Amino acid sequence: MATPAEGLKFERVAADVASLIERGALRAGDRLPSVRKLSRERRVSIATVLAAYTRLEHEGLVEARSKSGHYVRPKALLPPAPPRKPRLALSPTRVTVSSGVAALVDSMRDPAVVPLGAAAVAPDLLPIRALNRILASVARELSTAGASYDPPPGLLSLRRQLAKRSLTWGTAIDEDSFVTTAGAMEALHLSLRATTRPGDAIAIGAPTYFGLLQLAEEMNLRVIEVPSYQGTGLDLDALETVLAQAPVKACLAVTTFDNPLGALMSEERKERLVRIVERHDVPLIEDDIYGDLAFDGSRPRPAKAFDRDGRVLLCGSISKTMAAGYRVGWVAAGRYQPLVERLKFSQSVATPTLMQMAVAEYLAQGAYDRHLRHLRSALASQVQRYRAAIATSFPAGTRVSDPKGGFVLWVELPQQVSALRLQARALERGIAIAPGPIFSARQRHASSIRITCGTPWSSRMDCAISLLGELACEEASA
Amino acid sequence: MATPAEGLKFERVAADVASLIERGALRAGDRLPSVRKLSRERRVSIATVLAAYTRLEHEGLVEARSKSGHYVRPKALLPPAPPRKPRLALSPTRVTVSSGVAALVDSMRDPAVVPLGAAAVAPDLLPIRALNRILASVARELSTAGASYDPPPGLLSLRRQLAKRSLTWGTAIDEDSFVTTAGAMEALHLSLRATTRPGDAIAIGAPTYFGLLQLAEEMNLRVIEVPSYQGTGLDLDALETVLAQAPVKACLAVTTFDNPLGALMSEERKERLVRIVERHDVPLIEDDIYGDLAFDGSRPRPAKAFDRDGRVLLCGSISKTMAAGYRVGWVAAGRYQPLVERLKFSQSVATPTLMQMAVAEYLAQGAYDRHLRHLRSALASQVQRYRAAIATSFPAGTRVSDPKGGFVLWVELPQQVSALRLQARALERGIAIAPGPIFSARQRHASSIRITCGTPWSSRMDCAISLLGELACEEASA
Repeated sequence: MATPAEGLKFERVAADVASLIERGALRAGDRLPSVRKLSRERRVSIATVLAAYTRLEHEGLVEARSKSGHYVRPKALLPPAPPRKPRLALSPTRVTVSSGVAALVDSMRDPAVVPLGAAAVAPDLLPIRALNRILASVARELSTAGASYDPPPGLLSLRRQLAKRSLTWGTAIDEDSFVTTAGAMEALHLSLRATTRPGDAIAIGAPTYFGLLQLAEEMNLRVIEVPSYQGTGLDLDALETVLAQAPVKACLAVTTFDNPLGALMSEERKERLVRIVERHDVPLIEDDIYGDLAFDGSRPRPAKAFDRDGRVLLCGSISKTMAAGYRVGWVAAGRYQPLVERLKFSQSVATPTLMQMAVAEYLAQGAYDRHLRHLRSALASQVQRYRAAIATSFPAGTRVSDPKGGFVLWVELPQQVSALRLQARALERGIAIAPGPIFSARQRHASSIRITCGTPWSSRMDCAISLLGELACEEASA
Repeated sequence: MATPAEGLKFERVAADVASLIERGALRAGDRLPSVRKLSRERRVSIATVLAAYTRLEHEGLVEARSKSGHYVRPKALLPPAPPRKPRLALSPTRVTVSSGVAALVDSMRDPAVVPLGAAAVAPDLLPIRALNRILASVARELSTAGASYDPPPGLLSLRRQLAKRSLTWGTAIDEDSFVTTAGAMEALHLSLRATTRPGDAIAIGAPTYFGLLQLAEEMNLRVIEVPSYQGTGLDLDALETVLAQAPVKACLAVTTFDNPLGALMSEERKERLVRIVERHDVPLIEDDIYGDLAFDGSRPRPAKAFDRDGRVLLCGSISKTMAAGYRVGWVAAGRYQPLVERLKFSQSVATPTLMQMAVAEYLAQGAYDRHLRHLRSALASQVQRYRAAIATSFPAGTRVSDPKGGFVLWVELPQQVSALRLQARALERGIAIAPGPIFSARQRHASSIRITCGTPWSSRMDCAISLLGELACEEASA
């Protein structure tokens, strides 16, 4: 047992080692000096060093491996920080999306850049060869298809396939209740145009996909951010408060594996969400683009399944599961359907016929479910692989989300790291990431980044994550 | 020579015959009663009847055919009425697009309806087989193309082809000055979003394409209508007055073969137009979708050719010349380019990759100019064929435009005809037309209709125009 004097000593030793870890001098996976060596160097007893290491073990900073010594533990694999409830700001904010978005979009055009930024799945994981084969036969066989406008609601055969798939979502949406769109972003844009006027306030999860914030900014909408948490998604109590006190015209939520947190709202909470918007007579615009990507193979029901009076506008697309470049999406707009059809006509007249045909035919051939099984399992293991690598390379104190679906990780770095600076430095080295502030209208999350795990793990990805970790450690200790 | 008494008689006879023609009892192409027969029936001299018929000839109502008698002349082939300058309304109007638009869009979905309504070219006249063949090989050969987002400004190979084609337009727009879009409507929408705020006033030609008015209405823009005439296009003096007196934020014009009048502004007038918007520091959004369709094979330069400071946003598409269902268009947005790129990203992220690739490849193969020669000549003769048929079937007093390009006719019917009623009655009989009021924010042109000549002449079209003429005559004499 340590005497009082020894006690102070072991705490000092523990604090010094902890500080080396914090500053990144000792990294996740690094072996600590052996007990004997440190005892010699620090001129303390072996018991003191052992006590210091035990303390660090209890703090979760190091781990003892039997017969091998002590190692810096990958801190990131600790559960994410418990939600710190941000103060709820009831006054709507005019959105200003930072320059981080422009840099991110620019990087999408350069194939030489390591794609950890944009939320895209690598072509190798998508059924693009099958889709393109089908497109080729459709274009060959239906030699005049695509000549004419195919006005809203869009191609009937695709809407029929969507109606069929809606059964797997735990809903039953008929073919006449879909409008096909140029991806989910057009669907969301049309939904916002149908439910709001410029100057209106909308409630939106925070953090959330930067594209939604940019859209709100450009549409001159003000947003009230409702906190969202990694475990449970949207804070429904906060939403109630917001709707009770602010004149909100629409609520916009990514309910299943949201972006960037990866949160999945339970069915109970989704139902409660719908009841809340019902009670306050507000439409709910639901972004469901990650709904098919649960790692456990389940298909979480969207909030739309609990819609009783057509107030939920369900938006989806094939961009995350089939082909982003096909630009095929949809909205089941409930009571807003006629208006959305009209807006779609004057916004872009029609969705490209042949793209819709190819997607409809791919779905009709029945290969989609098999593909999904493969895709989900690939993404599940990729996400774990990226997490492990981040845990190894990133500065101590880093926390990483642990999503149950989708393919993005939310990485909270030590406070002294500027995500925007890290983005710029990483881009100089050919790596794209998405900085935290672009996911918030109030530019919160200054030290967080989103990392996309859409590309299969490879030495290129390994090097990129390592380099990113080095940069982050430099920033953390700067 | 007629005595004074005879003189009164021949005028009475002439007036009676004219009234039969006006009421549609005698139609274009009908033979008048022979001189002898009418002389007997009316108990007047042969000279009186001859004098009456000569009077009617001078009035342009009938024509004598040698050895065959007198015939009702196709009034419609008279030149269109000289422009009656409408009173210039300087107070901006909130747009309300009539129900006529909904009926028109609905009819686009039904292949059984005779397509005289929407401004579309029949697939048989478009290079759709060649395009689809190219699309099929692109999809087969580039088996992963279309998997990824292709963010603004869009596919480089297509922008290069557009830059090359811009030389044939008498301009030189480089590849980096184009953003590809989902057809011209998305281009126009993006241009309006880049230059205006809700509540702003814009100046727009009148009559003009109803889709632009619908878009303005939905964007909560107010419009000031600047008269447009069949011969010369936009009334530039009126535009000067409007810009001098009203706070206009953008000017929107279809400068070459506008829709519905088919007016072509001369180069001098286009240059003056640009100088006017320069002087008043207003951007010009130029819709050039009919620019490639001059019957004489010329390629009228767009106003963009006279742009000195990037204030002209030139919008175009392949919808009228290649394939409407491909949804490929573009905007060369001048100084608004960065903003348009950003808006495009959050509006629909990207334009479908494979559609852009097929169009780029079709243009690169060099078959477009040959196709255009064929298309222009087909449309030129179709337009004349439709005009002749209208002249024969429609009520006396009908006036028809005589466009030098494009494929729509503007038909001014006698005042007592309600175009909206005619649209409804025609649709009951399976014929779509576009009623005049939808082309005006103030719902003018109550007795005019637009007829699309995009489908090759056939007995089906013949019957449709005849039936339409019958309905119009009924309305005219009701």
